[in-house]
Amino acid sequence: MPSMIEGNAAIGQSGGPTAVINQSLVGVVMGLRARGACRPGHPIRKVLGMRHGVRGLVHDELVDLSEFEHERLERLASTPSAGLGSTRDKPDRAYCERIFKACERHDIRYFFYIGGNDSSDTCRIVNELSNKAGYELRCFHVPKTVDNDLVGSDHTPGFPSAARFVAMACRADFMDNISLPGIKINVIMGRHAGFLTAASALARRSDRFEGSTDGPQLIYVPEIPFDTERFVQDVAKIYDAKGRCHIAVSEGICDEEGQSIGATLIRGGQTDDHGNVQLSGSGVLGDALSNLLKEKLTPPGGKPVRVRADTFGYIQRCWPEQSRIDATEARGAGRYAAELALEGDLDGSVAIERVSPIGGSQPYAAQFKRLDLSAVAAKTRHMPDYFLDGHNNVSEMFLDYCAPLIGKLPSFERL
Amino acid sequence: MPSMIEGNAAIGQSGGPTAVINQSLVGVVMGLRARGACRPGHPIRKVLGMRHGVRGLVHDELVDLSEFEHERLERLASTPSAGLGSTRDKPDRAYCERIFKACERHDIRYFFYIGGNDSSDTCRIVNELSNKAGYELRCFHVPKTVDNDLVGSDHTPGFPSAARFVAMACRADFMDNISLPGIKINVIMGRHAGFLTAASALARRSDRFEGSTDGPQLIYVPEIPFDTERFVQDVAKIYDAKGRCHIAVSEGICDEEGQSIGATLIRGGQTDDHGNVQLSGSGVLGDALSNLLKEKLTPPGGKPVRVRADTFGYIQRCWPEQSRIDATEARGAGRYAAELALEGDLDGSVAIERVSPIGGSQPYAAQFKRLDLSAVAAKTRHMPDYFLDGHNNVSEMFLDYCAPLIGKLPSFERL
Repeated sequence: MPSMIEGNAAIGQSGGPTAVINQSLVGVVMGLRARGACRPGHPIRKVLGMRHGVRGLVHDELVDLSEFEHERLERLASTPSAGLGSTRDKPDRAYCERIFKACERHDIRYFFYIGGNDSSDTCRIVNELSNKAGYELRCFHVPKTVDNDLVGSDHTPGFPSAARFVAMACRADFMDNISLPGIKINVIMGRHAGFLTAASALARRSDRFEGSTDGPQLIYVPEIPFDTERFVQDVAKIYDAKGRCHIAVSEGICDEEGQSIGATLIRGGQTDDHGNVQLSGSGVLGDALSNLLKEKLTPPGGKPVRVRADTFGYIQRCWPEQSRIDATEARGAGRYAAELALEGDLDGSVAIERVSPIGGSQPYAAQFKRLDLSAVAAKTRHMPDYFLDGHNNVSEMFLDYCAPLIGKLPSFERL
Repeated sequence: MPSMIEGNAAIGQSGGPTAVINQSLVGVVMGLRARGACRPGHPIRKVLGMRHGVRGLVHDELVDLSEFEHERLERLASTPSAGLGSTRDKPDRAYCERIFKACERHDIRYFFYIGGNDSSDTCRIVNELSNKAGYELRCFHVPKTVDNDLVGSDHTPGFPSAARFVAMACRADFMDNISLPGIKINVIMGRHAGFLTAASALARRSDRFEGSTDGPQLIYVPEIPFDTERFVQDVAKIYDAKGRCHIAVSEGICDEEGQSIGATLIRGGQTDDHGNVQLSGSGVLGDALSNLLKEKLTPPGGKPVRVRADTFGYIQRCWPEQSRIDATEARGAGRYAAELALEGDLDGSVAIERVSPIGGSQPYAAQFKRLDLSAVAAKTRHMPDYFLDGHNNVSEMFLDYCAPLIGKLPSFERL
């Protein structure tokens, strides 16, 4: 084992929580403890949890996880949302100085941060400043985001569970749509990347495209510019043929100029500390699209077409049913970060690499690898072209990519 | 066995679907078949399913369920939403004449209709007109509604499963709220009755009120006039103390004059054939309350308070996880209606009577009974005073009433 600096480890959670972010927390804690951390003679003396990420760290709000009972950790792992509390703070230089002082005060030499691309950037900045300051601080980013928008990974922990929820909700909601026909819009999370909205396609039965007219029949992701006229035409075509239409729309859809359709519709919209406009926690986009369709598709003097819009909202990221693979991988990602630290790595971001081919009969398999922090930080991954099919559908390859991640869904009987 | 008229049975589903409405459908079909219906010599020759309720019946859109395989029926029973299709049509006299003609054409003498209070009224009208016309038609109403607003029953099939979803979603969403604090509003279904919104209280841990500050801390039901000023004060009090607040609001909340807060806010709102304004499938109420709180609680010149609103929407009634008791009772209600018909009853509505005391250590127990159609039809049950605690909470008795219906929820670990 290469020489390890003596001190404490600290772990924090950042950004929007997921169903499995506590799996990663428990993975780091158990990974460190399994290799002797927190026991006499080991260079890592304590494992400290930051309350609400770096915000808690700078305010000395820390919880000692060194002695936490195994069973309590296991219960925590199956609990959705960030057990330590989360934050959207993005440290600038002044903030990072405060982080260093907190690290010095608490003798923190191992810094684990679980989060998305904003959080990996926090990790990178803290790491750079610690290097410049000559304070030896080893920084590890553990990936997490329901948006699945981290570069360098096949997918991100948190996405499979959220995707499972979305697919299940759309499968059930489509049954509702055929039972009481009309036009139904479901607005799905994903500010810049359409992966979670695309996962709605898994709601369709396994016979997939050929002859299948299962919902959602139309899927709109942020990667393809959204044209409202074309949207109305798409819906009209299906509605005219079937008297109903089931639609999945990303909250992040943008027009040709890259202007967010949702953000421009939100009066008094809030921005967070990263300058992002609030898209979740509001029904404005769904309602606007719904009003548009009512207006355009109702015949003059005729009975208004029935249009309903649901915005799935926060349940997508906190619904407590974890996808089996997601639970395993989120735990493993935390444990892998702990191993990197214990084996002498100075910093890095954990990534998931799929080692089985997408599609075909081979069972799904993946492994972890270490990436440089700078390779991941503040970058956004989008859906590649080969996951898309035209402007309103996903490809067969995307279905093959996503299906093993979410696991089997219950199949419904139709008369 | 009293004399039974020879002919066919028809069964239909009406109104908003639920997670267990197909259990009741299967209960009627299996209940009739188990006692010999559809076999040579039995007075009931066929069991016909109406496509989209009475709308399908008058258009001769019927499906023969007499020979449906047992396994397919069992799969259908665990499928959410109305397997036969549903309708919101409410027959007037002219419509009912068409129903009679359809019944004559198809030799229907046993009419089973699964639905809520609008649907029981349909049953009553059809029954009255058939009596006047001298056409012997035996009409049975099988109860269904997530709103739990049928009179004469302890509760209604469909409610426990929806209540389970609401409680689970609120329990998980509260974890999200403590993780990234702010004000969170969840808008829950229930046009006139607050039962489903009240079920959000089951999200709190079992220690209940004493010292517990689990969300939702504030619950607003349609039974109590909603005062926006008082609402802002309620929220401010909790937000000032904790920096966060978790709120459950019924879509059906009304002001002192009985004007729906949601309906008055919806521009271009649609009404259905029963004159009801569309409240579901829109985020307007949540967004309006959210904007109100942002405006009133943000200090002058200060950082806007973080307020988010989710409208749970249709997932509440179609989420495919059935409460165990709900599945059993919905099936049983269908079977009981079949038995009433087979034992010579002329008409009636099935009700659930709880035979165990609410609260205490005795396990939950219930039985079915027959009510007159007129006792149930077009009447709305509201939450009684003893289920409420002040203007923004539910009573201990409501928790005791609701807890056995939804079953055990997963318990979450907190640091």
